[in-house]
Amino acid sequence: MREKQKKGWKRIDRKKVFEAKDTKTVYMTLFQDTVQTQTGKTLSYTHYRSSNVVIIVPFLDKETLVMIKQYRYPLNKTLLEFPAGHVEKGESPLHAAKRELREETGYRAKRVEHIYDYHPSVSKSQQVVHVFLATDLANGVTDHDSTEDIDVEVVNVKELESMIAEKRVQNAGTLIAYLLCCSGIKNMINRRRNESG
Amino acid sequence: MREKQKKGWKRIDRKKVFEAKDTKTVYMTLFQDTVQTQTGKTLSYTHYRSSNVVIIVPFLDKETLVMIKQYRYPLNKTLLEFPAGHVEKGESPLHAAKRELREETGYRAKRVEHIYDYHPSVSKSQQVVHVFLATDLANGVTDHDSTEDIDVEVVNVKELESMIAEKRVQNAGTLIAYLLCCSGIKNMINRRRNESG
Repeated sequence: MREKQKKGWKRIDRKKVFEAKDTKTVYMTLFQDTVQTQTGKTLSYTHYRSSNVVIIVPFLDKETLVMIKQYRYPLNKTLLEFPAGHVEKGESPLHAAKRELREETGYRAKRVEHIYDYHPSVSKSQQVVHVFLATDLANGVTDHDSTEDIDVEVVNVKELESMIAEKRVQNAGTLIAYLLCCSGIKNMINRRRNESG
Repeated sequence: MREKQKKGWKRIDRKKVFEAKDTKTVYMTLFQDTVQTQTGKTLSYTHYRSSNVVIIVPFLDKETLVMIKQYRYPLNKTLLEFPAGHVEKGESPLHAAKRELREETGYRAKRVEHIYDYHPSVSKSQQVVHVFLATDLANGVTDHDSTEDIDVEVVNVKELESMIAEKRVQNAGTLIAYLLCCSGIKNMINRRRNESG
């Protein structure tokens, strides 16, 4: 089944109401648009643009993942996550994945493979998250940036699975990365990729 | 393994820079905070508050899901999703789940069960998504709100699985709902819940 694309809404006006960025990364550019919907109704729609993100799922071996425990200020909580970060200006998602893996965990990977793209926040943003699988790892030195409070954690896949079953994994990115790289879906994705050549 | 909670960051100042809300729902209240990190460094952190969200995974029978095709303005795309919406002021997540299911698809469910909570955007927001499973369905009339351009779609679980394997499911919520309610993890969650009583 293919999703038949609906008639799009028409943008009548756009106001930029906020921006937070630096030379490498757009954290958030917030827009308030006046739009006309498919029924002709006019309304205000708030949404933001943000640099895309990479998530990396690094396997030390078939059963062992390299994860991180990161403090997250908006939640005032420490969460178990996969290394991740923004795609900086001028770099490819693949380059960002290798860089973030090294900076956040110290590991370098001989093999980094693009697995999937998804939108994390479809009602609010165009942002894309690119999911990568990293294998054949070698350890090295981390390079955390000023906003990161991160500890590296080596985790067995079964242990992560147990944590999800106990509802202890709270980060959307971690749940999706588990689905795509550690569950039965992973083999289906590989098979489809091999079939399509 | 329990995530040892790290020392939190300290908020020094808060500025509310934008707000979009109505009487029932906070769409976004954007804050720019001045914070002191765990290393004593001072920096600016942008984040938003937003009403929590419910996603409902409705099973017509063991193999058949009720889904929706929804136009998403920030992406200018039509996506395959599960019914979902904000928890309105004064209502419980369970009430929101039943209401959104009925409004978006017309279906009412005799059984609506809370499955999981997760944070969709850990770097930007405190927002929580509550995932519900709905079974024993009866059909009825939809009640779409003015911003919704939605068609109801009955989808076989295996068909959804194929679409994920072909990388055609782009919405984070749909991927997570599939993981928690349609994959092997679902049975593990049930077993843990029964064990803990």
